[in-house]
Amino acid sequence: MKVNCLSGTKDLKAVWYEDKKVFMIDQRKLPGNIKFVTFDNYKEVAKAIRNMTVRGAPSIGAAAAYGMCLAAEAGENIATAAEVIKSARPTANDLFYAVDSMTDSLEKGEDPVAASNAYAQSMIDKCLAIGKFGEGLIKNGSEIMTHCNAGALATVDVGTALAPMRAARDAGKDFFVYVSETRPRLQGMQLTAWELMQEGIEHAIIPDGASAHYMSKGVDLIITGADRIVSNGDFANKIGTLDKAISAKYYNIPFYVAAPISTFDFSADTGEEIVIEHRDEREVTEVNGYRIAPVGSKALNPAFDVTPANLVKGFITEKGIFTPDEISKVME
Amino acid sequence: MKVNCLSGTKDLKAVWYEDKKVFMIDQRKLPGNIKFVTFDNYKEVAKAIRNMTVRGAPSIGAAAAYGMCLAAEAGENIATAAEVIKSARPTANDLFYAVDSMTDSLEKGEDPVAASNAYAQSMIDKCLAIGKFGEGLIKNGSEIMTHCNAGALATVDVGTALAPMRAARDAGKDFFVYVSETRPRLQGMQLTAWELMQEGIEHAIIPDGASAHYMSKGVDLIITGADRIVSNGDFANKIGTLDKAISAKYYNIPFYVAAPISTFDFSADTGEEIVIEHRDEREVTEVNGYRIAPVGSKALNPAFDVTPANLVKGFITEKGIFTPDEISKVME
Repeated sequence: MKVNCLSGTKDLKAVWYEDKKVFMIDQRKLPGNIKFVTFDNYKEVAKAIRNMTVRGAPSIGAAAAYGMCLAAEAGENIATAAEVIKSARPTANDLFYAVDSMTDSLEKGEDPVAASNAYAQSMIDKCLAIGKFGEGLIKNGSEIMTHCNAGALATVDVGTALAPMRAARDAGKDFFVYVSETRPRLQGMQLTAWELMQEGIEHAIIPDGASAHYMSKGVDLIITGADRIVSNGDFANKIGTLDKAISAKYYNIPFYVAAPISTFDFSADTGEEIVIEHRDEREVTEVNGYRIAPVGSKALNPAFDVTPANLVKGFITEKGIFTPDEISKVME
Repeated sequence: MKVNCLSGTKDLKAVWYEDKKVFMIDQRKLPGNIKFVTFDNYKEVAKAIRNMTVRGAPSIGAAAAYGMCLAAEAGENIATAAEVIKSARPTANDLFYAVDSMTDSLEKGEDPVAASNAYAQSMIDKCLAIGKFGEGLIKNGSEIMTHCNAGALATVDVGTALAPMRAARDAGKDFFVYVSETRPRLQGMQLTAWELMQEGIEHAIIPDGASAHYMSKGVDLIITGADRIVSNGDFANKIGTLDKAISAKYYNIPFYVAAPISTFDFSADTGEEIVIEHRDEREVTEVNGYRIAPVGSKALNPAFDVTPANLVKGFITEKGIFTPDEISKVME
């Protein structure tokens, strides 16, 4: 991704390996500061995953792979390192997958640096393919809406929902992106808008509640990411996605979900099986530790909602675009 | 409205006239502080309307009436005062109605204080009637959703959307209210939740984007206020209302609009004629003067959206509940 620093424009990733160190953009400091952090041992990488210096499941996976690389390079006990890194976040499937994948590679005697770089690059390659397939949906003059951050910060580079936009921009198209701010954690305002700003893609932040208003004025296309897509095409994504999908249907605006095939979970039949994580209510009632809600009022803070498949026009994957009815093709 | 102060529970209004001054609860300071402000000239009242010390169409109307009262008491030019006060906010029909009503009263030689007090009291009486008609919609165990603040703070006292809830509580019913926080200015979190807290009505604050999620889980009834209702039943209300009305239709949940008949504007045929106020983008991009958005990213901040009549189950007025098709009855 392009990052505009004082010293000029750089081409950076959310996490990478260089000079026997793991580098990361400290995502907790965005958008106010572009700060890089470096780690030369796996315990610090585990800590960075835990404290959300790096976030987004694929980026966490890449960080974990590089952590395993550091452990191998330093001659540490691989099983211990795997255990420490896996314990950094409780539910991120990519984290466990990356650590197990690296353990396999190391047991086969592969080079730690090559193996971890290959892991990170495979994610980028999938995003590039998503961008290639999704780019055709964006016309010159299109008005697009997105939600939360399904960008390069979350996926090492390129992004999922943002991949078609990067590809369309590279193809010389002009378009406009409505970025819904994504309360309570503001990943839309603070991460997606930041990425689009770095890339010079025209955009505006809107309150989540202004989504239907701008759809009524004429949005051409909606693209979001997904955290989990089940067999019938129902999918879980950041809270606020369902509202947009319903309004998109009402205004007959095509709603697309961009995600790698690894996001599909064929062990679940419908969205009713998806368990919604409820997070601390203080994410809603406090800003920087300062209470903004009335004392005594409680808040509800579901992290995700489940959108039914019938509201989805298509899933943009690294293998092509599929309608909900075509998901059986994805399984093959 | 009940206000629980350190010195005990008081019965207060959002705006009132006393000792040749206009008193207001400074709604920008809630819920952290209960602060009263006083004004002795109409220009300050117009400023208080503009900077949202007082907000909510009927409270704005009462403040405007009291502003006209101050102008008359001070021997100011009434036409000039009317123009200045009317220019304070562009969308609220009550503002224009109150100023014109006071101008008529003053031209007839009525006492300014009595006329403006009568205007404010008539609003309270209308809210009590709205509460009486709307109370029947709330059952024991109902789950209700509301948006923004259409409470006592917005209507001098009692409220419009909150009037049926106050009446149902007084009738001994138990129910639960989902309060959407209402970004960017958080009137739901900071004013409606505050009022419900004072009254001891069970509620929870939700992010605006969680509205459809909770509707999918089972909401029985949605009640919002309105800033302007036009001849065909289209209405303007706080940004985020349209999203909820569309989702309510999708889930077949009855969506009611509580408003006095003075909110109806029969000079406009459809919602397309309603001009939407766009406010400073810093309401979205800053918190307490601290920028939370990326430098260079712009934001859009429409204060209202327009919901089409076909999404409305009924308008709860002081004359009864009317469907959009029955609006001609309201005209009579």
